[in-house]
Amino acid sequence: MSLKLYYAPGACSFIPHTLLETTGAPFEPMLVKLHKNEQQLDAFKAVNPRAQVPVLVDGEAVVTQILAIITYLDAKFPEQQFLPKEPLARARAMETLAWLNNTVHPTFTHFFMPFKFAETPEGQADIKAHAAKVYPGLMAELDAIAQKALAKGPFLGGERFGPLDAYALTVLRWGGFAKVDPAQFKTLWAHVQKVAELPAVKRAMERERLELNLYKA
Amino acid sequence: MSLKLYYAPGACSFIPHTLLETTGAPFEPMLVKLHKNEQQLDAFKAVNPRAQVPVLVDGEAVVTQILAIITYLDAKFPEQQFLPKEPLARARAMETLAWLNNTVHPTFTHFFMPFKFAETPEGQADIKAHAAKVYPGLMAELDAIAQKALAKGPFLGGERFGPLDAYALTVLRWGGFAKVDPAQFKTLWAHVQKVAELPAVKRAMERERLELNLYKA
Ligand SMILES: N[C@@H](CCC(=O)N[C@@H](CS)C(=O)NCC(=O)O)C(=O)O
Ligand SMILES: N[C@@H](CCC(=O)N[C@@H](CS)C(=O)NCC(=O)O)C(=O)O
Repeated sequence: MSLKLYYAPGACSFIPHTLLETTGAPFEPMLVKLHKNEQQLDAFKAVNPRAQVPVLVDGEAVVTQILAIITYLDAKFPEQQFLPKEPLARARAMETLAWLNNTVHPTFTHFFMPFKFAETPEGQADIKAHAAKVYPGLMAELDAIAQKALAKGPFLGGERFGPLDAYALTVLRWGGFAKVDPAQFKTLWAHVQKVAELPAVKRAMERERLELNLYKA
Repeated sequence: MSLKLYYAPGACSFIPHTLLETTGAPFEPMLVKLHKNEQQLDAFKAVNPRAQVPVLVDGEAVVTQILAIITYLDAKFPEQQFLPKEPLARARAMETLAWLNNTVHPTFTHFFMPFKFAETPEGQADIKAHAAKVYPGLMAELDAIAQKALAKGPFLGGERFGPLDAYALTVLRWGGFAKVDPAQFKTLWAHVQKVAELPAVKRAMERERLELNLYKA
């Protein structure tokens, strides 16, 4: 078994986790307990000096960064069509993936780990409060993207489950931590619930022991 | 002429700007003056509702997000080999591009536009100071990446100028605003100076009227 995925329950590693489960290829799930700061252990930093999940290992190759792992899995499992082949459709998928990765995901990180971005307790509280305020607007934007995409096909990237669906599920789920009720984004929430029922996604959720709805009124 | 690039001088639109100049294809440069807040004008927001450059327009297609534009130009101009074809090399390029896009670039945005991330003057000052403190470490990391890559080939992505070189130039140049002397990152700085002399890059710099070294002791 040459494929390994370093992951943490509920973290953004869920995205490659579901893709790997979708391929049906055997892989070794390598649990990194972020709540115990295991990402800072020397053994893990030898794998990824940036001390973050996800990390995909394929034999000698070590790939970090969600977007790079997606690109790699798309090329390794072409039959899955994780990314569209046609140039404009591929750029469209990359456009939303990049926005999720450089805007939505960091906004959640501002909420969850504000100490990474400011020094004082007041500064950290400010960043956190601002992120919580901005997050619903980002989910509304994602809901609009989902409405447009799902008018054309069953998944956000077209005919098949792919990284856009997994990333959407992840960030909408995270919203629950920030008191953002997912149910207010009707199209997105219905889609994410459907995605969570796919057998491959279900296997990943069971391994990570995830509840889909973290929102508590 | 069906290609258009919305850009702002010195902004991250420099990356696709240099790629377009490299292709030799005619394109219409569309100036957006960020210092006059022109990105907030209705006419521009009709093109990109997120009110940011870069935006690439190719006939009917409108593509935003640097990584999506790179993906699109790579497919449209395959002879330029902007991204490697071989899956692992491609994932490696994407790994560094994604990190630049989701970590280095946002850190600079924290420095330059802290009001996007916090509400109070104190919170904004804190974010800005933290970003300025973190930035040199990110440049050191990029310098190490450059050392590794340039031991193998003349450009960061291999044999030819590409998006990694353009992004590296952009973020190292931005460092000058944050009082980060580029010359301390010897390999990176030598490389960026060489890149700035490429005819295509020179044309983009002249159109944007850019000085390479913004650092003042
Ligand atoms: N830019 C990285 C971000 C990865 C990331 O944010 N990982 C988080 C989990 S969602 C992590 O490992 N956090 C632990 C830490 O930062 O200490 C990517 O796109 O892969
Ligand atoms: N995530 C976007 C970021 C684009 C971005 O940061 N654009 C900046 C210039 S470097 C901008 O237009 N800023 C104006 C503003 O935000 O008001 C991408 O990767 O293209």
